[in-house]
Amino acid sequence: MFSTIIQPRFGDTDCLGHINNATLAHWFETARNPFIRIFIPDLNIKIKTFPLIMAHSDYDFVDILFFQYDVEIRTWVTHIGNKSFTVYHEAWQKGHLCVKGSAVIVYYDSKTKQTTYLPADKKKLLKIHMRSEKEVSS
Amino acid sequence: MFSTIIQPRFGDTDCLGHINNATLAHWFETARNPFIRIFIPDLNIKIKTFPLIMAHSDYDFVDILFFQYDVEIRTWVTHIGNKSFTVYHEAWQKGHLCVKGSAVIVYYDSKTKQTTYLPADKKKLLKIHMRSEKEVSS
Amino acid sequence: MFSTIIQPRFGDTDCLGHINNATLAHWFETARNPFIRIFIPDLNIKIKTFPLIMAHSDYDFVDILFFQYDVEIRTWVTHIGNKSFTVYHEAWQKGHLCVKGSAVIVYYDSKTKQTTYLPADKKKLLKIHMRSEKEVSS
Amino acid sequence: MFSTIIQPRFGDTDCLGHINNATLAHWFETARNPFIRIFIPDLNIKIKTFPLIMAHSDYDFVDILFFQYDVEIRTWVTHIGNKSFTVYHEAWQKGHLCVKGSAVIVYYDSKTKQTTYLPADKKKLLKIHMRSEKEVSS
Repeated sequence: MFSTIIQPRFGDTDCLGHINNATLAHWFETARNPFIRIFIPDLNIKIKTFPLIMAHSDYDFVDILFFQYDVEIRTWVTHIGNKSFTVYHEAWQKGHLCVKGSAVIVYYDSKTKQTTYLPADKKKLLKIHMRSEKEVSS
Repeated sequence: MFSTIIQPRFGDTDCLGHINNATLAHWFETARNPFIRIFIPDLNIKIKTFPLIMAHSDYDFVDILFFQYDVEIRTWVTHIGNKSFTVYHEAWQKGHLCVKGSAVIVYYDSKTKQTTYLPADKKKLLKIHMRSEKEVSS
Repeated sequence: MFSTIIQPRFGDTDCLGHINNATLAHWFETARNPFIRIFIPDLNIKIKTFPLIMAHSDYDFVDILFFQYDVEIRTWVTHIGNKSFTVYHEAWQKGHLCVKGSAVIVYYDSKTKQTTYLPADKKKLLKIHMRSEKEVSS
Repeated sequence: MFSTIIQPRFGDTDCLGHINNATLAHWFETARNPFIRIFIPDLNIKIKTFPLIMAHSDYDFVDILFFQYDVEIRTWVTHIGNKSFTVYHEAWQKGHLCVKGSAVIVYYDSKTKQTTYLPADKKKLLKIHMRSEKEVSS
């Protein structure tokens, strides 16, 4: 599991007084940085060689998120396929699970411009962050 | 169906050179304004009486979206339940379907602070925008 | 003068119930697209050859901007220097001037990696949108 | 001086490959939270009683900001007037000053709906963060 602490920004809220739903897309993306580092250790993103494509994302909004408290995003791997992997996020604030969601990331060969097989060494690094039964919040 | 034309903003792109995935959450939200108008005709949002809660959203990223062309968001209702309804969006650019996704919106009574039954007149207005078999893009 | 119509997005608001101040940076940027087109007519931005650098921006917040009404951004050129030009924006909503601000854009030679002289033909195109005395709102 | 560490988000970048200029408005706003706490210690923002209005902001873009490194925003008070105060920000990354800017914040009485005099106790708290000659970066 990776834990990412987010300090909400004023602009993350909306006129309903709480954190805007679209903000979660930004926060979960930030929480995936440690996974990007598996492929690009220095996070120096180059368009021409970036090997990851976002194929799917989903969000379940369980409870309201407030501006004034830090948020912890907990992130696990929940599936490792041949050419893709799935990441699962939970946003916690003040001891409450507020949003959960997942993202399917496809591995891509920028030379052949096609999706391709995840290398064994990358799979191994992803497996370390696989979610265990014990970690499922009830 | 509602059609919403979006002019991408520079800040909607990211360092991969295309539209950032989180931007779709903002665009689809904008495309739901006509549905908010069913409940609040003048769009004058008041925190204390706003009757809609976002419960779920999902996104399938089919193709890349570019900065320099306008985007059309096509939006339908795909399900009307007792206390919620589901909206389905497609983002089209230059004749290509680029992203599709849905949002589940729950109806909420701000007085009792509980989810509640969608009034018959609102259901009727939602039904007008129900997606027909003919409108499913192949 | 260029006129750009902006439909506010839900995420453009903040928990104070109105348009967030940072949103204006996004809106004014969008209103500068016609100026980018003077240099890159198809708006197909390439990192390696993009010739414009933002050197300065400022904003005067005169009145509150609301979510539910469209906004018109009026944009003029107010200064054309040797190696830079200044653009001036006004955000109008429901007949009120709400925000005014300017941006200084520097012309840049991506080959020599230095600021350089604005070509005469570009200056001529910029001059067309120079703000006249008559256009100054009292 | 207040120091705020910002972890750039993927969505903070744009198609030019670096941090988008509008992002600085969000970052500087976040860096003003400690000043909001002088007026609202728990940061629990209420529309009806919020006493601060943003009147002006400006930004000087000195150098490029990158996605992959944390950013430190250093914030001082540079002027305390009768009814307003000015905050000055610097964004530093990897030992370089990248953006500097200021914001003028007006004190507002939400009951009378007018700008009003800064209370002496608030002025005292603001004064603690006044920028000294020694702190001016050359």
